[in-house]
Amino acid sequence: MPQNQAKTHAGTAFIEGRYLPIAEAAIPIEDWGFLHSDATYDVVHLWNGHFFRLEEHLTRFQESMKGLRLNCPYSREQIGDILKECVQRSGLKDAYVEMICTRGQPAPGSRDLRTCRNRFYAFAVPFIWLANEEQRSRGLHLSISETERISPKAVNPVIKNYHWLDFVRGLFDAYDRGAETAVLVDGSGNVIEGPGFNIFAVHGNRLTTPASGMLEGITRRTVLELAAESGLEISETALPTDRLRQADEAFISSTAGGIMPIGTVDTRPVGQQVPGRITQNLMNAYWALHDDPNFATPAYD
Amino acid sequence: MPQNQAKTHAGTAFIEGRYLPIAEAAIPIEDWGFLHSDATYDVVHLWNGHFFRLEEHLTRFQESMKGLRLNCPYSREQIGDILKECVQRSGLKDAYVEMICTRGQPAPGSRDLRTCRNRFYAFAVPFIWLANEEQRSRGLHLSISETERISPKAVNPVIKNYHWLDFVRGLFDAYDRGAETAVLVDGSGNVIEGPGFNIFAVHGNRLTTPASGMLEGITRRTVLELAAESGLEISETALPTDRLRQADEAFISSTAGGIMPIGTVDTRPVGQQVPGRITQNLMNAYWALHDDPNFATPAYD
Repeated sequence: MPQNQAKTHAGTAFIEGRYLPIAEAAIPIEDWGFLHSDATYDVVHLWNGHFFRLEEHLTRFQESMKGLRLNCPYSREQIGDILKECVQRSGLKDAYVEMICTRGQPAPGSRDLRTCRNRFYAFAVPFIWLANEEQRSRGLHLSISETERISPKAVNPVIKNYHWLDFVRGLFDAYDRGAETAVLVDGSGNVIEGPGFNIFAVHGNRLTTPASGMLEGITRRTVLELAAESGLEISETALPTDRLRQADEAFISSTAGGIMPIGTVDTRPVGQQVPGRITQNLMNAYWALHDDPNFATPAYD
Repeated sequence: MPQNQAKTHAGTAFIEGRYLPIAEAAIPIEDWGFLHSDATYDVVHLWNGHFFRLEEHLTRFQESMKGLRLNCPYSREQIGDILKECVQRSGLKDAYVEMICTRGQPAPGSRDLRTCRNRFYAFAVPFIWLANEEQRSRGLHLSISETERISPKAVNPVIKNYHWLDFVRGLFDAYDRGAETAVLVDGSGNVIEGPGFNIFAVHGNRLTTPASGMLEGITRRTVLELAAESGLEISETALPTDRLRQADEAFISSTAGGIMPIGTVDTRPVGQQVPGRITQNLMNAYWALHDDPNFATPAYD
């Protein structure tokens, strides 16, 4: 797997028409994107100077904005150009590139969402691994939380959003138990997703991942495509907590690091070795895609 | 009822140790208080130069921070002083005064919440009525949403938070139906709360308000205290949608305007007149409390 060298805290942001060093980038405190978390976003990663699946991220971002009735002041093409400009000004080769649309703020004295002028922000910062190098090599210590993921009956999880307080609760509980991260559940004893990742379990030649209640991750989609190509049986279906515990292999998927193995679930080892054979094959295939021009869009001319 | 004259968009904020005009106040885009809505807040209102129930708001804010394991860089006394300074610099007499604690951002390269230095922000802006003058006089047009309020099994609603996308969904649905605001439900057909308000129904001499699943509003508490003093029977219990529809009177409570009558529920008038007799009596008693030194703390020396 390629190694990411960026260690310093740097990057470039785009705020209200201006490009700024990330350390100076700030948003108005009155933006309801902050005060009501009334916002959507997407994150595409840059690897070796290339965006990975940029078009899919732009499409999902546009669908998320539509779902929240947000009108981005920039076109899809302009957004692509802004992301590229953020990357170029940052000089980063491996980056985490985020695009955000917020509600903005209502007309003075009003609380009517229809009076808001929506805002667009973006930034490129050094690539952030969801799991660090040690964790990727021995597998993450995962805790199954009792906290439920926010229900789709309340907030549509397909619209990528910043409502993370359920994850925050799960994470602190996980830390208390000596784990590093958490996966949340639904009301029926099935795992759903974790903070920034989808989850997969391998039993024999079968790959299982939840079908609903979670973000439809683009890395998740990539895993499913690669799994189908490699002849694995795929079950997009409810994943009961016990079925995850009894898996031969388990891993998470995220834009922030691709496919990353799970080493233990609630302190009990998963399977015989980490990463397992199927997980390792998927990881290799995932990183190989980053050299495929069908998936990689150059950010530098 | 007193009238609020402030119409201009002005105010003062406190950001990282500095006082700024509200229009210049901004928070770092990388603060996870924005990027993960990992934050809590409280709002106290100022009326005729006096904070209303300031100590209760400070207490709830401290409990919310504790619940999210946030360590505010300022003591309770310092927070009180900062709020007062924001008000004095703004010159406002009737204001909406918000205090916020955010997660901040993790150490470079890390995603561990325990590496974050938490941040405190505050601002005073002109008093914002949740319902405008016309709405208060003829009663709000309320829609009962099919959207569920985020469940306490996911996010503790007693910890005041910015997770409003369920409200946003309810509001747009309400606008589509010609209503002005929405109340969300639980999974069992009971109303819970709306964007920024608790809800009450009056049947005869009985006042009913939901007991769980919602923010424990300080205005809600004030209403319950006033209702008890005036001899009303009080039911803190589940409020089924039909029971709200059949109410003799209904109203909302919020720091952003106190007690405000509901005129229609899903286009059908509530009761015989708006505001109803009991609602009007509670409104009068609520505003009278603003002259009581047990409730009102001067912001100006």
